[in-house]
Amino acid sequence: MFSPLIDELMSSLRCLPGVGPKSAQRMALHLLERDREGASRLAKALAESVDGVSECSRCRTLTEEEFCTICNNHRRLKSLLCVVETPADVLAIEQAGTYKGTYFVLHGHLSPIDGIGPSDLGLDQLQQLLSTGEVEEVIMATNPTIEGEATCHYISERAKKLQVTVSRIAQGVPLGGELEYIDGGTLAHAFSSRQKI
Amino acid sequence: MFSPLIDELMSSLRCLPGVGPKSAQRMALHLLERDREGASRLAKALAESVDGVSECSRCRTLTEEEFCTICNNHRRLKSLLCVVETPADVLAIEQAGTYKGTYFVLHGHLSPIDGIGPSDLGLDQLQQLLSTGEVEEVIMATNPTIEGEATCHYISERAKKLQVTVSRIAQGVPLGGELEYIDGGTLAHAFSSRQKI
Repeated sequence: MFSPLIDELMSSLRCLPGVGPKSAQRMALHLLERDREGASRLAKALAESVDGVSECSRCRTLTEEEFCTICNNHRRLKSLLCVVETPADVLAIEQAGTYKGTYFVLHGHLSPIDGIGPSDLGLDQLQQLLSTGEVEEVIMATNPTIEGEATCHYISERAKKLQVTVSRIAQGVPLGGELEYIDGGTLAHAFSSRQKI
Repeated sequence: MFSPLIDELMSSLRCLPGVGPKSAQRMALHLLERDREGASRLAKALAESVDGVSECSRCRTLTEEEFCTICNNHRRLKSLLCVVETPADVLAIEQAGTYKGTYFVLHGHLSPIDGIGPSDLGLDQLQQLLSTGEVEEVIMATNPTIEGEATCHYISERAKKLQVTVSRIAQGVPLGGELEYIDGGTLAHAFSSRQKI
C-alpha cells in the first residue's frame, strides 16, 4: 500500500514482541511523521547492541564487557550464586534490592520437546564455576513452572555432587495477595509448606 | 542496571508510541536474546526510511519517490481530491477499496493553540494544485472532531473561491453499530441529517 521502504519498516517492526500489523503501522507513521530523530537514535542503538552485546563470561547475562557490572562488583558475594532463567529475572531480583550475591543466567529451561538440553543452558560452564570452590551456596530461582522445576531438579542434583549447598526460593502465597483470588495449586503448596511461627 | 548499550537500547525503544519502560525492557531483551537478525533488519529499515522517505510532491503523503504510487497511477482520477489529516487515513480509505481519486495529506489539523497554521498544513500547495483546474471536486475527509471540522471549513472556503466543488464525507451512525451504544452527539446529527428513502 505504501512505498517499499515504509512497507519494509512496518514489517520489520513486527519482530518486536506484542507488535501486530496495526501497531507496526502506527509506529512507522509516528516515527516518520513526528520523530525522525528518535528513529535514527533507535536505529543506531539497535545496530550497536547487536554488534556489541554478548554474554558475561562468568554469569552469562547480557553485557558488552567481558564481565557484567554485577560480576565485576567486588562488594557482591561470589560465594552466593543465584540461578535464573533470563536476564529479566536478574533485573527483577535486583529491583527487589536485598540480594547481595551473583547470578548465573540459563537463557531458558530444559525442554527436550524443543530440543533444549543441558549444553544449551550453559550447564558445563556452571559445573566449571562450581568446581572452582568459590561458590558455597546455589540459590535456584528458576520459574515455578513444570519446566522450571525440572531444570531446578537437574541442576541441584549436579551441584550436590560437587558438595555445594543448594536451596530453592520459597513458594507460597504472594505478599499483598488476597487468598480469595489465589489459585488452588499455590494454596495447597502454601499449606503443605507451612512454617512454625 | 544493565550495561550502557542495553540501557540505551531500552530508552531509545521508548520513542515508539505505546511503549513504556516495561515493554521497552521486554523488547530489548527479546531482540538481544532471541532475534538479533530481526534487530539488524529493523535497524537497517529505520536508517533507510529516515534517510529515504519524504513527502510526495503532489499529495504530501509519505513516499521515497518524488510522486507516491497513487499520484503516479494513471487510472486514479486526478479530478477527485480527498483531503485527509494523516497518511494513516489514506491507508484506511484505500482499504475500504471504493475510492478511485487522489489524496492530499495535511499532516495535522489547524490548531492555533499549538501554533499550527495554514502554512504547516501545506495549504499553499493545495491552493496551487486547485488553481491548475485539474481538480473538479474536493472531498473533505478530515476527522469529525472540532479541529477537523474547523480545518474542513477553512479549506472549503478557500476552495470555493477557486470555483471547485467541495463535499464532506457523510456523518451519522456507523454501519453495523447498535443504536444503544452510539453517543448522543452522533445520534442527534444522524437525526438532523436524515435522508428521504
